[in-house]
Amino acid sequence: MAECQGDGEGAKSPMELYEKLTAQGEQVRALKTAKATKADVDAAVQLLIKLKTDYKQMTGQDYKAGCPPSENSVAPDNGPAAGGADDEDTVDPWNVSTNNAKGVDYDKLILRFGSSKVDKELVDRIEKVSGQKPHRFLRRGIFFSHRDMHQVLDAYEKQKSFYLYTGRGPSSEAMHVGHLIPFIFTKWLQDVFDIPLVVQLTDDEKYLWKDLSLEDCHRFAVENAKDIIACGFDVNKTFIFSDLDYMGASPEFYRNVVKVQKHVTFNQVKGIFGFTDSDCIGKISFPAIQAAPSFSSSFPQIFKGRKDIQCLIPCHRPGPLLQDDP
Amino acid sequence: MAECQGDGEGAKSPMELYEKLTAQGEQVRALKTAKATKADVDAAVQLLIKLKTDYKQMTGQDYKAGCPPSENSVAPDNGPAAGGADDEDTVDPWNVSTNNAKGVDYDKLILRFGSSKVDKELVDRIEKVSGQKPHRFLRRGIFFSHRDMHQVLDAYEKQKSFYLYTGRGPSSEAMHVGHLIPFIFTKWLQDVFDIPLVVQLTDDEKYLWKDLSLEDCHRFAVENAKDIIACGFDVNKTFIFSDLDYMGASPEFYRNVVKVQKHVTFNQVKGIFGFTDSDCIGKISFPAIQAAPSFSSSFPQIFKGRKDIQCLIPCHRPGPLLQDDP
Repeated sequence: MAECQGDGEGAKSPMELYEKLTAQGEQVRALKTAKATKADVDAAVQLLIKLKTDYKQMTGQDYKAGCPPSENSVAPDNGPAAGGADDEDTVDPWNVSTNNAKGVDYDKLILRFGSSKVDKELVDRIEKVSGQKPHRFLRRGIFFSHRDMHQVLDAYEKQKSFYLYTGRGPSSEAMHVGHLIPFIFTKWLQDVFDIPLVVQLTDDEKYLWKDLSLEDCHRFAVENAKDIIACGFDVNKTFIFSDLDYMGASPEFYRNVVKVQKHVTFNQVKGIFGFTDSDCIGKISFPAIQAAPSFSSSFPQIFKGRKDIQCLIPCHRPGPLLQDDP
Repeated sequence: MAECQGDGEGAKSPMELYEKLTAQGEQVRALKTAKATKADVDAAVQLLIKLKTDYKQMTGQDYKAGCPPSENSVAPDNGPAAGGADDEDTVDPWNVSTNNAKGVDYDKLILRFGSSKVDKELVDRIEKVSGQKPHRFLRRGIFFSHRDMHQVLDAYEKQKSFYLYTGRGPSSEAMHVGHLIPFIFTKWLQDVFDIPLVVQLTDDEKYLWKDLSLEDCHRFAVENAKDIIACGFDVNKTFIFSDLDYMGASPEFYRNVVKVQKHVTFNQVKGIFGFTDSDCIGKISFPAIQAAPSFSSSFPQIFKGRKDIQCLIPCHRPGPLLQDDP
């Protein structure tokens, strides 16, 4: 989905990582002592596991509480050979990097993210259901992973339609060719399934993350919309909106934002996005604004108040993934 | 302003408070080490000082790092005598309580909050500027404190108008007489100064804090609006709005919300409202929604896009205070 900037949480030295791990361990204990909700504890544990994996990768040793790393702790270099260390790929909502000369291991990534592979069976099924030759991005494995795509196709075969949701964080006047990848693929999906598309331009997000004025972010949204329109989407089935405009124009959209905001804690977004206590409250609550368009009730003007229409989210970060609604 | 529920941060035992203090001390050190912004450090230090004061009050001893309180640490009872311990009054955005049999010491409160007393000079000046006998709530000291009220009167004398902003958190169908205090006083202010009034009904806040449905909160807002209308405000100069409706109807309002959200960190709201990592992200960002109506640009339909109109906020929590805009 929309590309955005994070403070990240990458520790630079083994000692720094060791200290983060110790603090996170204390955090998990504190949550359990305070009888926090299962979701909060799970989110904290998830971050703890990630830090432990990072620590092992960086130092080559298991983390042991009370035993700081020695000064010359450095991970053994696995070289470019296949089958190296388990976590040589680093993928978070903002960055993709790898130590492996062969590039990111997408199969491992799919396993870690709990999504599914876009395999031959799925590509064949898309061809059968849509009656069209699959897009080259599918045949060539550019969009390599999905979640519950079969569920959307099941419904489609039973004459139950779905809609597409994608977006863009407007941080500059013009989009480059890399930004167009998800839009080119989305255009194909709209054509073959003949379904509605909503495109969220997160000008509010860009204002919160970058050193830009609200006016500039909104102007970039308008400019970027022109580039998106140029992809040739169906004018009768496409809704492109700026958050700054649509939030102030749709009580239904805001209601869904508030509903998501009520059911997500700071602990959860901290675990997922790496937010810290020094982040502004706008960043912390922003994930709810990006989640809301995946509910069809956010667009009563399109779906006539129906709340049960499934949503497919073509996106390319981290890497091109096909996601269903949450 | 709108009454709302918080998890609070009241420790029940000296040991619990001691542990909170130790954790907060570590937090301050961590922020300084991480070279956090001055605002963040200040907010954390402020909370630390408050905890130290509470600790002294509870145990009768100064907090000393590394020295947990003994099991029978109990504060000496100062009795009902005047001039007891410095912090026998506890006032936060949700609660007002005191150990002093004579009640809350409002003079000390004014000192702690850095506001000013509504003294005879101010009451006389309000009479002179408005040409009306001051309201009984002013003469009897019910509204006992203010911030920058003279500034608003200075401007008014130079024919520069101001507007009033108050609100209500709609958590039930009917309002009781205590809820009406700020509205009765606000009605008088509107009458004598002949100025616009905006009333924010925070139905979104009630949904976030209470176990209520969005629909119920919105319905309570509509019901409460009837009680507020019954106070007799000027129909041509009064705007009563539900957040759930107005957020989705005014891009200008949402823009001000986002602007506030960008300039307030989690550390700051944690210090002021006592939020924790287990609170939902909606609560954490809510203060921005309550701040936005104090900017006249949130209401272009009333102020024709003017951004420089001062705002006076009659409110009664904590205790009746008169506040200017931030």
